[in-house]
Amino acid sequence: MTDPLNAFVPGPRCAIAGRPGGALDGLSFAVKDLIDIAGIPTGGGTPDWPTGRTIPAEHAWVVAQLLAAGASVIGKTITDEVSLGILGENAHDGTPLNPAAPDRVPGGSSSGSASAVAGEACDFALGTDTGGSVRVPASFCGLYGIRPTHGRLDFTGITVQAPDSDTVGWFARDAGIFARVGAVLFGAPCPSKLPTKLIIATDAFGLADPAVAAALQPMVHRLAALLGHSAERILAPPGLTAWQGAQRVLQSSQSLQTFAPWLDRQNPRLAFNVARGLVLASQITDADRTRSALIRLEARARMRHLLQPGTVICLPTTPFPAPLRGLPLSTLNVLRERMSCLTSHGGLTGVPQVNLPGATVDGTPVGLSIIGAPGTDLELLAIARNFAGQAL
Amino acid sequence: MTDPLNAFVPGPRCAIAGRPGGALDGLSFAVKDLIDIAGIPTGGGTPDWPTGRTIPAEHAWVVAQLLAAGASVIGKTITDEVSLGILGENAHDGTPLNPAAPDRVPGGSSSGSASAVAGEACDFALGTDTGGSVRVPASFCGLYGIRPTHGRLDFTGITVQAPDSDTVGWFARDAGIFARVGAVLFGAPCPSKLPTKLIIATDAFGLADPAVAAALQPMVHRLAALLGHSAERILAPPGLTAWQGAQRVLQSSQSLQTFAPWLDRQNPRLAFNVARGLVLASQITDADRTRSALIRLEARARMRHLLQPGTVICLPTTPFPAPLRGLPLSTLNVLRERMSCLTSHGGLTGVPQVNLPGATVDGTPVGLSIIGAPGTDLELLAIARNFAGQAL
Repeated sequence: MTDPLNAFVPGPRCAIAGRPGGALDGLSFAVKDLIDIAGIPTGGGTPDWPTGRTIPAEHAWVVAQLLAAGASVIGKTITDEVSLGILGENAHDGTPLNPAAPDRVPGGSSSGSASAVAGEACDFALGTDTGGSVRVPASFCGLYGIRPTHGRLDFTGITVQAPDSDTVGWFARDAGIFARVGAVLFGAPCPSKLPTKLIIATDAFGLADPAVAAALQPMVHRLAALLGHSAERILAPPGLTAWQGAQRVLQSSQSLQTFAPWLDRQNPRLAFNVARGLVLASQITDADRTRSALIRLEARARMRHLLQPGTVICLPTTPFPAPLRGLPLSTLNVLRERMSCLTSHGGLTGVPQVNLPGATVDGTPVGLSIIGAPGTDLELLAIARNFAGQAL
Repeated sequence: MTDPLNAFVPGPRCAIAGRPGGALDGLSFAVKDLIDIAGIPTGGGTPDWPTGRTIPAEHAWVVAQLLAAGASVIGKTITDEVSLGILGENAHDGTPLNPAAPDRVPGGSSSGSASAVAGEACDFALGTDTGGSVRVPASFCGLYGIRPTHGRLDFTGITVQAPDSDTVGWFARDAGIFARVGAVLFGAPCPSKLPTKLIIATDAFGLADPAVAAALQPMVHRLAALLGHSAERILAPPGLTAWQGAQRVLQSSQSLQTFAPWLDRQNPRLAFNVARGLVLASQITDADRTRSALIRLEARARMRHLLQPGTVICLPTTPFPAPLRGLPLSTLNVLRERMSCLTSHGGLTGVPQVNLPGATVDGTPVGLSIIGAPGTDLELLAIARNFAGQAL
């Protein structure tokens, strides 16, 4: 099967029909290759990951729910190596196309899922998001994308990276389909009553490129009008950089703990930058971790303080549109640190976040995000649906 | 062409006939894939190394000399990735067979060259030795192997790792052939007069497994008898570990400097352990380098003090025979540090060293090394030839 998007993992394409008659009957979806499909090896984006692993006997919980609701699997999609990447360039499988900006990266690590949806190969696609791996490709490819409340969806059958931050989410082009998937997975309809207060995170807008902040302003205005009330606030009083530093310490320490036995036993082939992250994680001290866990406590308290009932926060999903493909690491690693200043709150505090497409800079997409209190995923999906309807 | 040794780089085997009538007429040799052969890409043991590199237009100086002397090239051999390894396990090309111990590693990074000679695929083979990459596989495979005086042989056309320590050497099964290659490359006959004093490096024997030290004793006694006089001395008064630490700092800093532009531009696929070494090198401070350069000065002075005219030093080449294949990194990295305590003097002080085969532990080879003052390479080859003749 041809794959002009380079979105799907090489080899025979898997296809599983959904159970007819469900809420998602007739929809097609793709599955990031960190998520189990029964009978198919989970590749994890590296040739040395499957070694010694058994072929899954069961679908991941999330795949089983979607098949039971009538959606059909059309294939597994390329991921950054073992989920450790945010740009979508995989040294083994190549870089999936960003259909909205073909000379640019798609974002990662759920790169192939974003590419498949943006390229109209399917209606929606599953990804995972530990440090931004759904939100970033959603922003870069111009898609709806959700990082659900941490711990709300069953993670069974999904490759773990950093369990304190791992989530499973999805992408869609259509806000209605985006919300319908949520109603199935969260087991409840989207509410008809929307939140009533919008907080505009001024520090996050300040960290974005001025052109991005300007491009998002019309969306912010429409969103404020939709909800009825808005106010400007600082999201992270100690600095988004402080939150980013704490999440880097906690997430990369936990990632190393996950992968260390594999590294030791297998000495796997990894892109240098992926290995670099794991080695630098081994240099983190217990004192760093203790301090970072305190910053996490403060960050969670800050989110509770801001996210009173009926409140959502908006911010740029990424500080810039998708970078060009093939940049040197010295450039990319600086961009990556800056991007994670706008995404680290997710893994750090567990709040749900939805990327709303709708803006571009020089023709390249960039998204506006909304964040709600833990458990308000369906409210965020309802905003996305109403926001889209309003735009028509 | 079949390759039961897995010694040669995958793909078509190159073959170049030597010029008839020279000193090495009729001999065949193999070339480590870090050394240029005109018209053939130099692979360097990694699929991402040749990218963007031009195919060599000229043979490396050393290859040209050997062809001109009548020896014929029979192929290029597997190396550890970009010479960064000492065990001979290559995650991309596999592990060459150690014909003397098939369940064990061949040693590296000149793994395929040692395998090809030990497996009788050719008469001799070229390798490089920066931190032990000829000496270690010679010990593990039971071969003659030489690390020449640093800077004595022209390094043109050979992939640089750490120029302050890089050398090009060779392996042979037969001491006569071993010495004849040296006469060609050094441009002079082996002397008939041997050194007259043997220093037995007691600290180095103390660092070896007791079974290895015991197995080498008969060789030491024969060598002392051959030269006429022997004495026990400490090689490294501050500790072989201090020399090893200094060489690790200096060599790995210089390796990183060599490879950093490639890593940045290419983000190459590397085995995790190779990447780990490069990343840890990036953590070395200028203060570490300054201190290590002082230790290097002291080590060179110590060698000058010990290696008075007519003197050679003997020590175990490796502290143990070849380890089993496929050990976990946590085990291998400890073994590797210990091995380099017995090899670091080479890169640190530039002295020439020859491995003499002839001992085994439980049937597995382990070698005795002789070291001479800089420039005494031919004297070491003469000892090897006489030592072998004596054994007959």
